[in-house]
Amino acid sequence: MTWSPFARALLAEWLGTAVLLATVIGSGIMGETLAGGNVAIALLGNTIATGAILVVLITMLGPVSGAHFNPAVTLAFTLKKDISWKRSAAYILVQVLGGLVGMLAAHYMFEEPLFQLSQNIRTGDSQWFSEGVATFGLVLTILATLRAKPSAVPMAVGLYITAGYWFTASTSFANPAVTIARSFTDTFSGILPAHAPMFIIAQFIGAVIALFIANRLYAKEELGARS
Amino acid sequence: MTWSPFARALLAEWLGTAVLLATVIGSGIMGETLAGGNVAIALLGNTIATGAILVVLITMLGPVSGAHFNPAVTLAFTLKKDISWKRSAAYILVQVLGGLVGMLAAHYMFEEPLFQLSQNIRTGDSQWFSEGVATFGLVLTILATLRAKPSAVPMAVGLYITAGYWFTASTSFANPAVTIARSFTDTFSGILPAHAPMFIIAQFIGAVIALFIANRLYAKEELGARS
Amino acid sequence: MTWSPFARALLAEWLGTAVLLATVIGSGIMGETLAGGNVAIALLGNTIATGAILVVLITMLGPVSGAHFNPAVTLAFTLKKDISWKRSAAYILVQVLGGLVGMLAAHYMFEEPLFQLSQNIRTGDSQWFSEGVATFGLVLTILATLRAKPSAVPMAVGLYITAGYWFTASTSFANPAVTIARSFTDTFSGILPAHAPMFIIAQFIGAVIALFIANRLYAKEELGARS
Amino acid sequence: MTWSPFARALLAEWLGTAVLLATVIGSGIMGETLAGGNVAIALLGNTIATGAILVVLITMLGPVSGAHFNPAVTLAFTLKKDISWKRSAAYILVQVLGGLVGMLAAHYMFEEPLFQLSQNIRTGDSQWFSEGVATFGLVLTILATLRAKPSAVPMAVGLYITAGYWFTASTSFANPAVTIARSFTDTFSGILPAHAPMFIIAQFIGAVIALFIANRLYAKEELGARS
Repeated sequence: MTWSPFARALLAEWLGTAVLLATVIGSGIMGETLAGGNVAIALLGNTIATGAILVVLITMLGPVSGAHFNPAVTLAFTLKKDISWKRSAAYILVQVLGGLVGMLAAHYMFEEPLFQLSQNIRTGDSQWFSEGVATFGLVLTILATLRAKPSAVPMAVGLYITAGYWFTASTSFANPAVTIARSFTDTFSGILPAHAPMFIIAQFIGAVIALFIANRLYAKEELGARS
Repeated sequence: MTWSPFARALLAEWLGTAVLLATVIGSGIMGETLAGGNVAIALLGNTIATGAILVVLITMLGPVSGAHFNPAVTLAFTLKKDISWKRSAAYILVQVLGGLVGMLAAHYMFEEPLFQLSQNIRTGDSQWFSEGVATFGLVLTILATLRAKPSAVPMAVGLYITAGYWFTASTSFANPAVTIARSFTDTFSGILPAHAPMFIIAQFIGAVIALFIANRLYAKEELGARS
Repeated sequence: MTWSPFARALLAEWLGTAVLLATVIGSGIMGETLAGGNVAIALLGNTIATGAILVVLITMLGPVSGAHFNPAVTLAFTLKKDISWKRSAAYILVQVLGGLVGMLAAHYMFEEPLFQLSQNIRTGDSQWFSEGVATFGLVLTILATLRAKPSAVPMAVGLYITAGYWFTASTSFANPAVTIARSFTDTFSGILPAHAPMFIIAQFIGAVIALFIANRLYAKEELGARS
Repeated sequence: MTWSPFARALLAEWLGTAVLLATVIGSGIMGETLAGGNVAIALLGNTIATGAILVVLITMLGPVSGAHFNPAVTLAFTLKKDISWKRSAAYILVQVLGGLVGMLAAHYMFEEPLFQLSQNIRTGDSQWFSEGVATFGLVLTILATLRAKPSAVPMAVGLYITAGYWFTASTSFANPAVTIARSFTDTFSGILPAHAPMFIIAQFIGAVIALFIANRLYAKEELGARS
């Protein structure tokens, strides 16, 4: 049986986002359970696991789908006209579905009720600004590294999120599919569903600003010469 | 004295699995001893050591044997017809023996009784599902990264296991030789011998599913063009 | 709209230094807030975030401006006659401005008063010697790695600072723009403004010695053959 | 002024070993001071700093001297006839001197008395076996990675020592110059001077065994084809 390149790309986006969310939520539960109340240690485990899996997922699935796993990233590539609006819509759909499946898998692995609603309060202008900064940085990392050194994108994204978990007050969700899935877990990494929409708006704004700045930093003709 | 390529491959599989187990078990003892009851910190030391040594072992022994160090990985390559069933059986034998030697070395270094039986309870459907997910992810990482960027396999495996220690509830044994050796240590990383067989079954199932999915993601003709 | 290469370089230096400072100060606040008084854990989070973001920033902005983000590094390249004094002055100006903007962004994200003065005492000959050593090591890392393997500079700088946070008693500011910005935050990573000038003098001395030693280690004709 | 390649190599070995020891001892003091009695956290800081600086030092000084920084490594290359006994003796001399200078620098940075004798007890057959294993692994990592993928040696050595700090009971000194310098610091990383000789003997034995095994794993004609 041979799948079309488009079907394989959707499988990659679905699977990658699922594994990403299983890691974000699962390692959050593991960290909180083991750290005995020291939240910094829980966040350290959460950080290391998330940064590591991003490098792996982008490396292994990049050639199949581009390895977005993130509607804000997909939007940026759509606005850049690298992918069509139709492909974009399909990507975002499977990303959101994948995120939910990853959330369910994490809950099942850690013997949590499968269906939950988060009660973690994450709101206010400082949080929204944090998400804008976080997503701006993530999308700029991807776009600028694609120009500077394409082979370094997986490592750059993993390291960017490693830093983002600590330098933004919101711990860098930076991803609408991640935000939706995390509103359905009442564990370490959750977000109250009512607070998710503002996060997602801030994320899309950050992504659009990143696209604008990337186009200032690199002129059109400068293709990734240092790969 | 010159050894045949096959003998050298068996030496590599034996030695690599031994060093892997010495690291898994030794760093578990070190972490538990020093962390003063904070299990998250013990797991952090265990994680960093295991992830790091995997990158080293796969880098330095890959050209000799393929650097499996894991019967589930060997099975996947056998089903892919990359290696013969006869080579496969020899690999698995020396992997299991190597794992036991590594366990003994860790016990001797840390002044533990050489021969022990673990009393760590690790059972139930959530644990088995965790091992299935963990091994699925590990084998998919190897197979897909071999297609996407073969030179990145050592780093991808090390980072995958780094994440796996935190995002699966079983801490990602993901390796039957590791599971057998860890049933003979009553320290941080042990598993009750009676609970080992279900872990191993879940691992082989995860490996087979990973092979199936990898064949959906990458078509036959797409050889690793981005190495 | 197309920007000149010089304008793009200034944007890169400004933005890179801003993100660097947001990371240094933001992750310091995050670490201190979460670590419950265990300063080593706070420093660990601070370290990982800073090391990671440096790799990202140098990778993605290196082709645009050289990715100095540091007046001591800019001075070394100016003395080497790699860049003109005029470009050097413009770089240093935007680096200092960028650092201040990054400081403000961190304060806003973490709901801190925007304008603060640090009260952290960091003075005495051991601290000054630490900053001299730290900056010597950083500038030598950059100059020698540029000769040994230019593609490794981003990783080398990130790992050098990762080590520097722990092996120097001052936690390796190693950067006058960073020192100025950190004198305006009364959080984990701050420095009493009155103590900043001696840090900066020690940093420039370290940078000049590094340039001298790099010229002893590598003869003129040996261009980076192993890139 | 131009230095001869030999003089530059000695400068590199001296400087590299000095920075290595400043890092090992300095980060040990930093960790112990900040960790509030949790030795695992102190060791984590010590580990990350040491692993990181090794990657940096080997990357930037490798082309100048081979970046041994370790008499056991120098011995292995001498027995392999890669370098002459005369060069070997000069390397070992400057490595030991460099280590002592790095120890003094760490003491000065952290306001410790410059001259100290360690009172840390590190003796017994489990400790000696640990050092033998640690140095065997380190030298095998270097020799086998030089065959498998020479460009990966800096990362492999840094990651090996990262693992070694946790999986050997002695925390992997694995280096006679390091052992000598650490006998002169009564801080976290010290070793009672009377216990140093047996560590050094175990290290040389481990190195010789590693050379023997490396010659079994890789046949003479297999030059590093995957670099």
